[in-house]
Parts: sequence; C-alpha cells; structure tokens
Amino acid sequence: MQTATRALAGFVAASRWHGVPQPVRHEAKRTLLNFLGCALGGCRDPAVEQAAVVLRGFSGPAQATLIGRGERLDALTASFLNGAAANVHDFDDTHLPTVIHPAAPVVPAALALAERFPVSGSELLHAIVLGIEVECRVGNAVTPWHYARGWHITSTCGVIGAAAAAAKLLNLDESKTLCALGLAANQAGGLIESLGTMAKSVSVGNAPRNGLFAALLAERGYTASPQTNEGPRGFAHVMGQDPDLSKITAALGDSWESSRNTYKPYPCGIVLHAVIDALLHLRSSGHFAPEVVSRVVITGHPLLRERTDRPHPASGREAQVSLQHAAAVCLIYGAAGLSEFSDRIAAEPAVLALGRKVEIVDDAALPVGAARVVIHAANGYSDAHEVTAPLGSLANPMTDAQLEAKARALAAFGAPRVEVEALIRAVWDIENTPRAQLAC
Amino acid sequence: MQTATRALAGFVAASRWHGVPQPVRHEAKRTLLNFLGCALGGCRDPAVEQAAVVLRGFSGPAQATLIGRGERLDALTASFLNGAAANVHDFDDTHLPTVIHPAAPVVPAALALAERFPVSGSELLHAIVLGIEVECRVGNAVTPWHYARGWHITSTCGVIGAAAAAAKLLNLDESKTLCALGLAANQAGGLIESLGTMAKSVSVGNAPRNGLFAALLAERGYTASPQTNEGPRGFAHVMGQDPDLSKITAALGDSWESSRNTYKPYPCGIVLHAVIDALLHLRSSGHFAPEVVSRVVITGHPLLRERTDRPHPASGREAQVSLQHAAAVCLIYGAAGLSEFSDRIAAEPAVLALGRKVEIVDDAALPVGAARVVIHAANGYSDAHEVTAPLGSLANPMTDAQLEAKARALAAFGAPRVEVEALIRAVWDIENTPRAQLAC
Repeated sequence: MQTATRALAGFVAASRWHGVPQPVRHEAKRTLLNFLGCALGGCRDPAVEQAAVVLRGFSGPAQATLIGRGERLDALTASFLNGAAANVHDFDDTHLPTVIHPAAPVVPAALALAERFPVSGSELLHAIVLGIEVECRVGNAVTPWHYARGWHITSTCGVIGAAAAAAKLLNLDESKTLCALGLAANQAGGLIESLGTMAKSVSVGNAPRNGLFAALLAERGYTASPQTNEGPRGFAHVMGQDPDLSKITAALGDSWESSRNTYKPYPCGIVLHAVIDALLHLRSSGHFAPEVVSRVVITGHPLLRERTDRPHPASGREAQVSLQHAAAVCLIYGAAGLSEFSDRIAAEPAVLALGRKVEIVDDAALPVGAARVVIHAANGYSDAHEVTAPLGSLANPMTDAQLEAKARALAAFGAPRVEVEALIRAVWDIENTPRAQLAC
Repeated sequence: MQTATRALAGFVAASRWHGVPQPVRHEAKRTLLNFLGCALGGCRDPAVEQAAVVLRGFSGPAQATLIGRGERLDALTASFLNGAAANVHDFDDTHLPTVIHPAAPVVPAALALAERFPVSGSELLHAIVLGIEVECRVGNAVTPWHYARGWHITSTCGVIGAAAAAAKLLNLDESKTLCALGLAANQAGGLIESLGTMAKSVSVGNAPRNGLFAALLAERGYTASPQTNEGPRGFAHVMGQDPDLSKITAALGDSWESSRNTYKPYPCGIVLHAVIDALLHLRSSGHFAPEVVSRVVITGHPLLRERTDRPHPASGREAQVSLQHAAAVCLIYGAAGLSEFSDRIAAEPAVLALGRKVEIVDDAALPVGAARVVIHAANGYSDAHEVTAPLGSLANPMTDAQLEAKARALAAFGAPRVEVEALIRAVWDIENTPRAQLAC
C-alpha cells in the first residue's frame, strides 16, 4: 500500500546529494556546527556525566567518540550520550513549526556510523539533512495536538529522524528504510512532564540510540508493520489526534524543513530572546549601570508573562524561563550565556534584587516573541528599545560568524581542551572530506 | 506531595518478604517457571536471533545469561533479549484485567541483577512480585482506554514494573524508587500496530532494559519529576484518558495483582482456548479422524468471530489468531503447541482444507472466552461439547504439573540442551537458595 510514510522512505532511499539545493547544504553545516557546540557545552552536565557512569559499565567496544569527553564507547551508547549532551541546556536548534530540536537525535546516529565505516563529508551532511526532513515532517503531521497533549516531540519524532539518517548511511532501500522508520516509531516516547529534570535527557538520548538500533535491525531484515505510522493503532493516530498525514509528503524534495531550523543565541526560552536583545542594546549606551537602574518596564504579548514571570527561580534550569533573571543578568553581566544561567547566579542576591525592579506589561497587539523595553535610571534618565525580530529568529538568523562564536563559547564552557578552531574549519570544509571524522 | 505513585514507591521500598502472603509467593514461582519456559521456547526465534546479532556488536562484558542460548552479554542487553524471547510467541502469562504480560518485562531485569551481586531466592521472588504489582496497578489506572487507543500495555507499563523490581533489588529508598518509576515512565512506548510483526519484540525488549537502566540511574541520584505519572503532562494523562489513579493504591498490600495472573496452555489468542479445549476433548473419543469430519460448528460470543475469523493465515503468527487454523490442527494433530502454529503448518493444504469445514455461529449470550463446538462426521454421527472455563483461566488454572509440562515442551522446542528438570526443581526450591542463579 502506498502510504505517506512509504513515500517518505522512498524519498530518503532515492535522494542524491547533488539534488539538495545549495542553501540547504549550507544550512546542514550550520546545524552541524551548532550541534557540536551544544554537545561540547553540555558534555559535562551532571545529566550526561551520571548517565555515562552507568552506561560505561555496559558498553561494548570503543567505537564512537563521546563529544568533548576524550572517551569512546560503543556506537549505541555514544549516540545516547551525545544526544543528551547536545540538548541538555535547551541551547540547540529549533524547528519553529514543531518546536522539535532536530539535531540532537539525528546527528549522533550519523556520527556514530561515520566512525564505523568510511563516510564522506557529503554523505554525512546528506544523512543529517534527510533525518531532519523525516523527523520534522512526521512532527508536522501530528502538530500541534502532540506537544500539547504532553509528548516531548524532540524525543518522539527524533527517534524516527535518527532512523532515517542511519538508514541512508547504511544505504537501505525503500522497503528496509520503511521498516527502520516503523521500528523507530514503535520506540517513540518521552513526556513533557520530564522537562526541567534530568529525566528529559533519557528520552532525548534514547532517540538517536534507538533510531540507530532500528536502522541496524532493518538492515538485517527485521520487519515492522508498513503502517506503523498510518495504521489505526500506529504512531500518528495513537500519539496524534486527527493527524494531517498529507504534511508528510507535501512538496517533498522542493521544500526543505531544514530551512525552518533556527539557532539560539541565548540558552533560555525563545520567548525571552527579544527582551535580551533589547536589554543588551540599551545597556551598551553605558547609562544603565546596575546600581542606577530604578525600573525596567518590559512589554510583551500576554504569553510572555504567562511563561516567564518567575521572580525567584530555584535553579539555573528555572532561570532559563525567568524574565526577571534574564533582565538582571543582561544588566549586571552584559551577557546571557550558559554561565549566566547557572544555579549559582540564579541565587545571587544582586540578581534577585535587580529582578524585583522588573515590571511586566501585557500588550496583545505585540506579536509573540517581540518585546518593548524601557529602562529608567534613578536620575530620571530613561531609554526605550523595541525588538520584533530577535537574533536567531528566521527573520534575523545568527550569522555564520555568530554561530562560530557560540561554538567557541560553548567549548570554553564545557570542553576547554577541544581544539575548537580546527573543528570549526573542519565543519565548513566538510563537503571536501572523503572521510568525515571530526576531532572533538 | 503525596501522590498515588509516591505511595506505590513507598510500598515497594518498605515491603518485606514475610509480609507477602503464601499463595502470592507460590504464584511467583509459577510465574517464574512459566517465564523461563517461554524464554527457552522463544530464544531462537528470528526476532530474538537477529536482535542478538545486532546487539552483540555493542555489548559490554559478559554479565548476564541469555536464557537458553549458552551465551552471556552485558546486563542491559541480556535484559532486552530475555524479555523479547519470553514474549515472542505470546505464550507468556496474562494479567486478565489489563492483558499485560507481566513477567517478560519484570523478570529479566531482576535476573540480570541477580547475576551482578548476591541475591537470595526470596529476594529475587520478592522483586518479581513487586514489579508485577507496580506494572499491573499502573496498568489498571489507565485501562481500558490505554490499550484501546493503541498502546502495547506490556511494553508501556512493563518498563515501570521492571524499574520497580530493579529498584527493590538495589535497595532504593522511597524517593529514589519514585525517581526510578518516573525515569521508566518517561521511556514508555510500544504500539499495538506492531503486534504480529518482529517490531513488537523491540518495545517488549526495551521494557526490561530501560526499566533496569532507570533504576540504575536513580541509584546514582538521577532525578525525575515526582509527578511523572500523575502530572498534567505525565504518563497517566498523556497515555490514558481520565485515568483512575485510585487504582494504583486500592487495597495495596492486601490485594495482589499476581493473583490475577494466568498462564496459557496454548500459544494463541486466549479467546481460542475454550475452542481448543472442546475440540481436543471431542477428538479424544476417536470418532473424528480428520478425513471423516464434514462440519465443525463453533458457537461463541461475536468477539470470537471478530478477532479470529481468519481462514487463510499468512504465517504462524497469524495462525495464532485464526479459529480455522486452531480447529484444524486440533483435529489433525491432537495438539495445539508451538509446533502446530509454525509457518509451515499454517500453509499445509490439509490444515487449510479442514479449516474450510469450520462454521462460526454468533451467540451474544455466551460469555467472551467460552465456546460450544459440534463436530459432524460424514456418516451422520455428531457430538457436542461446551467449555466456559477453559484451561488456564482464573477459574480453571493450569496446575503446577501442567506448568512443568509446558516448560518441558518449550525447552524441547527452543533450547533442547538446557537441563530443564534441574531448572524446574531449582524454581520450586528457590526460596531456600541463598544465591539465586538459575542454570538456563
């Protein structure tokens, strides 16, 4: 039976790199660089560290690199840990229509295979592009009900994308690719309730691990129902409500989901990014040293207050969705990077005190994600700035140079011994590499 | 916050073996024996064999036995393969209120730990009883919507039960046990669409593997939301609809879900068991050699036709839910064991020919699971038999001796080199064993 998912599998199997448009190819490099930066930044987080301690005791041969950790474990285990590391700070890429973080599930599966047999740079990028295409199209079909119901869409759709990427590198035909996608869909799981806890890293880590496992099983002739997605008791109907399966194949090969992928300049909720842009801009005038600020009036869509009015975040993780915290660190430190969202800084009295000077004003006429900020100094001076297309949005994407700087900062934060300049060069040059093996 | 799941975790942590009633303790041995038989019978099925080939390449040290296979792999991998083997034929135990197969997810996790550090026979049984208690109570809370929606409840609730069993053996306190259950619930997955395909074995295998992983993470201080089950975006509300959370704690410690566990005498849909009982009884008269049978009239609840009217099963797996096939093999072979549900026999012309003589009559007045069978011989002779409590039902459970015979037959089918008599004796004697290590 010709289903949407079979068509998608056929597309993956038949796709050729020269048929992928140049902007999509370049985006794949940006996605890879951003992924590597995030994995370097997250590789020593306790959620990764503790999982590594447990999994090391069960790992097979040293087949694949744990990014940033100077260690190799078996390919399935490395996929788990690299996926968890890349996503642990929620600083990784975001596919806006679905809020999937596309790279964390897909890239580790592809990288692990590239360490097992020779894979060229183009083949690696191609697998990543196709994995993202699959996970985001499956996600499109079940959006928005799926996430609203409570499914962590990066985990649930990610495992299917990881299987697609691995299937491509294993050179599976349409039929086996379809089995790989089905074997992956049958393993989909991960609950929104786990966000903000270490548990999130387990379902995110499972996505590349189990997607790779699915493709390897399919390679050996392991089968799944060809309707694992579309069937009445399949993924789309069980984990979606009235799914729009036509979105799986709409403009397939003409319109690429990678084009809707974005990269965060700040490791916090996207809804805060316009606020941070505005505050950093206003601070740069030199008029608003923390001790002279009397009021910070922040106007946004009512969703801004709803999601981020959190004056006393209990941890760095909670600070990532605290408007008060974000405003305070911008004014005090002139930065909003991983260091500024630590547990320590979330508890700093000066940060909490400045946070109390924040006033939130609702304005439903402003688009979600935009912000208008007015800072008042004690001497009566004030200045205002409005941001509607924050840095990192589709309308104002991070430049290649900004992505490089982000990767550098993340490497310095989490894996200072990695030679990040060489790694950056290797990513930009990867299409010329006959054998893709990134030293990280 | 005192949630039902926290109370359940507290119960697991505080439970003592001497507080488990004697009949429940004995049932645990029956469950273990039936599990071992099923795992021996299934350990060479292609769904296990091919997964073993793939996983062997990623396995860590030889820590735990692959039942029936004369091989040891790391504890997580062995848990996966033993769970898959025990359930692959759907011949394992069934908790009737939920249709969970309780042992396949729970027992492998417990056995794997018993090979890592000293565990007494009573401790092993205790962990199994508690694992079953947890998975079935969580299942009760989301039944019947959960399965009807398309969730393979053995996989989805099984991972939580496996985590409970492992948590008990690791001696985790209430708080860490609750984290283990949450880390497991966050990994729950497995779709009904996969039944009848190899894919089923992947989600069933993931259940003990990921449940064990969850408990080991919790032991190291890995955390999960304490509301991973009850929260608005948690397991019970995402994978259930209007869940009845009170069922998680109802009569906890007084009423044991193990008492509602049953064992199949035949490796096929339970709804066919009364039909098989009746046919084997009628055949034993000697009047109905296959060549003289002209009609077989089978009356049952309309669900019998709905689920099993399948005159041309394409495989042994489909034959497991074919009324025509079951009737034909009973009359031709006088048996309905694993051999009679093979691909080869499903395609046998004599079996298909006799299947065409089956007529199905609906009678909504008969209980589901009951059957009335009339066989007509070509010479005009006929005989009738009705079965309302088939062998293996709660009202007519398999005896200990019948479970032994089932284990012997399964061992002969799948693992003829295992010393099954010694294994059977070891199970009945396990409460006297200071260190439980079963030679299988």
